[in-house]
Amino acid sequence: MKSFVESANSADTDFPLANLPFGVFRRGEADAPRVGVAIGDRVLDLEACREAGQLAALDEQTEAACGAPDLNELMEVGDMPALRRVLQDLLGEHSTSKPELHEMRNVELLLPARIGDYTDFYASIHHATNVGSMFRPDNPLLPNYKWMPIGYHGRASSIVVSGTPVKRPSGQTRDDANQRPVFGPTTRLDYELELGVFIGRGNRLGEPIPVGKALEHAFGFCLVNDWSARDIQTWEYQPLGPFLAKSFATSVSPWVVTREALEPFRTKSVERDPAELPHLQDDVAYDITVEVWLQSAAMNEPIRVSRGNFRDMYWTVAQLIAHHASNGCNLRPGDLLASGTISGPGKDARGCLLELTWRGTEPLELPGGETRKFLEDGDEVILRAYCEREGLRVGFGECRGRVAG
Amino acid sequence: MKSFVESANSADTDFPLANLPFGVFRRGEADAPRVGVAIGDRVLDLEACREAGQLAALDEQTEAACGAPDLNELMEVGDMPALRRVLQDLLGEHSTSKPELHEMRNVELLLPARIGDYTDFYASIHHATNVGSMFRPDNPLLPNYKWMPIGYHGRASSIVVSGTPVKRPSGQTRDDANQRPVFGPTTRLDYELELGVFIGRGNRLGEPIPVGKALEHAFGFCLVNDWSARDIQTWEYQPLGPFLAKSFATSVSPWVVTREALEPFRTKSVERDPAELPHLQDDVAYDITVEVWLQSAAMNEPIRVSRGNFRDMYWTVAQLIAHHASNGCNLRPGDLLASGTISGPGKDARGCLLELTWRGTEPLELPGGETRKFLEDGDEVILRAYCEREGLRVGFGECRGRVAG
Repeated sequence: MKSFVESANSADTDFPLANLPFGVFRRGEADAPRVGVAIGDRVLDLEACREAGQLAALDEQTEAACGAPDLNELMEVGDMPALRRVLQDLLGEHSTSKPELHEMRNVELLLPARIGDYTDFYASIHHATNVGSMFRPDNPLLPNYKWMPIGYHGRASSIVVSGTPVKRPSGQTRDDANQRPVFGPTTRLDYELELGVFIGRGNRLGEPIPVGKALEHAFGFCLVNDWSARDIQTWEYQPLGPFLAKSFATSVSPWVVTREALEPFRTKSVERDPAELPHLQDDVAYDITVEVWLQSAAMNEPIRVSRGNFRDMYWTVAQLIAHHASNGCNLRPGDLLASGTISGPGKDARGCLLELTWRGTEPLELPGGETRKFLEDGDEVILRAYCEREGLRVGFGECRGRVAG
Repeated sequence: MKSFVESANSADTDFPLANLPFGVFRRGEADAPRVGVAIGDRVLDLEACREAGQLAALDEQTEAACGAPDLNELMEVGDMPALRRVLQDLLGEHSTSKPELHEMRNVELLLPARIGDYTDFYASIHHATNVGSMFRPDNPLLPNYKWMPIGYHGRASSIVVSGTPVKRPSGQTRDDANQRPVFGPTTRLDYELELGVFIGRGNRLGEPIPVGKALEHAFGFCLVNDWSARDIQTWEYQPLGPFLAKSFATSVSPWVVTREALEPFRTKSVERDPAELPHLQDDVAYDITVEVWLQSAAMNEPIRVSRGNFRDMYWTVAQLIAHHASNGCNLRPGDLLASGTISGPGKDARGCLLELTWRGTEPLELPGGETRKFLEDGDEVILRAYCEREGLRVGFGECRGRVAG
């Protein structure tokens, strides 16, 4: 399946014709945001397609949603299989249309959706065990962990798109229990490598989503960097959970990879032991390689500091959604559910510096002799993810953020 | 200061000419939402006032915001002192205009704002100590409590307006550590009496709000019932805080009492001991009586089950706002910050059943011989609040919710 867009046929592109992730872009500051689709190094302009009548084969709602200023409408009502077929024809090597494309480097990529609520889970048992053993050595994995996906509400207002600089936050910390706490810039700034799920169709308040139908509510996936200030977190998090340690910024990648594009990469999840309760029973995981790359101000190019896989998560995407709605909580189109840090069993698969440097006791060595316990000003963190199977590659692009002092 | 609206001059009305709380209403299901102001038992129709030119003395932004379908625009740009002066003239006993009024019982009151993010604090030291002593007998008040306002992100999607029935949620619970957890309807459903602050003008991401300027960002106040499923909460809340135990519903009163209307009721806050850090230094409290009333299906009228005062909170409103933004987190117009359960030093001032019945060990006796450890289906909880001083009364109206099975 080839595209007339040359760059989409290269073996290492994240955005071949089989992917077609959705995003929102503008051509300049004065331009209104519009929906786009990534293809190779280009962006297909869906508003222009609509105006040219190239989406006329779609139902009216889906066609109208392609002209919206964000993805929320498409998430709610879009017939995505049909839209994907139309776009694959439009962008295929035998396409007779001339759809409007922009060079991706020439457009500004924006937040893909208005995110009403943002929820962050804790679905990697490797991450939970590692972090738990640092914060509660005698009690690393709490008794509830294996019975339900633990999660908490995050801050929606401070979610920013990849490329937005992240200002080092100030906060209250206390290193010594015999001293007064102090207020000042965090000295333990960390990233967290996560994947996020954008909710498509929502549920009504009071009406849970059965786990067997839960994936139907997942519109698509993006990369999430849940920036964390570990010193602030340690001091504030009891008893109500993380708050200001996280709410200063959360970065997301601009391209939302649809559930349909990930179908070829479904695999069997790890088994819960003990088995999950019936209302959470599911075994669908996705085989997605996830990586963290880091570049300090002194370095010429980033190096990879970890690589894991999303299929190692203890709780599946369907379980996160079904659990979230199990009390009747309404999920709305555009809501974001993040997975929590994706860590694997191996040391090279630890998805945050807290784990990778074991709370700073095993500093990371960078080329040129620098070391890192936590992030320094000028450091850029780059998250990447991709699926690969039998010559087919579906990628997520990047989620970047540079630490500003 | 009298109004030509007779009911606004009665000594016991919550909505005299001195109050003028803002809300959103519609006259029927087919009607578009519009901004209104409560006056006695009537609602002033601001869209109609605008059309009749009765708001022409205001600046353009404020006048336009009065025609919006919710309060967000007014919260962001409204010149509230000027608007209040215009409305007091319009509704005063010497008014020569005939502004359009609706009977309050004939209109449907809606959520006053699009709430982007909802944050719930834990600002009553009496509540924190009581609850802490049940959940952690050896460690009731954690070491961070007296150094900063503890809070967490709540769920915005499930905030409903007063009068919306609240469905008893299901969830996972475990009473016996030797047994598997079970999934089913909560048996420990509770209310929490809180006040909420709607943010007016916001701050930009990365730019904290100094505590001395924090109150300027408070548009106004409402009643909040933070419904809580205590059995779900006990099992889920560690280590990331309350999640599904709260996210099934949060009720708010429809009328937002402006900061300006509360000016006469400012008072000195309790003193923090030890003294708060400089970036949180403040001493402005509000003298607001808060009450919980309860009516079971078998009762003919509600009885009051507790009465406290908002001035007893350990942390002030300015401290909640300044702390929230101290890491650079951006607050947006329409964001809701709730105080946490308002409990006082006395037993009759405990703002939730968990405290009032001491985890069910001291059941509440109702007229007719019924008792309550937690809420039963058909119970209606009514929150009320008001300020009174030298013949001036400024009230909040009610926040009601009936438990549906």
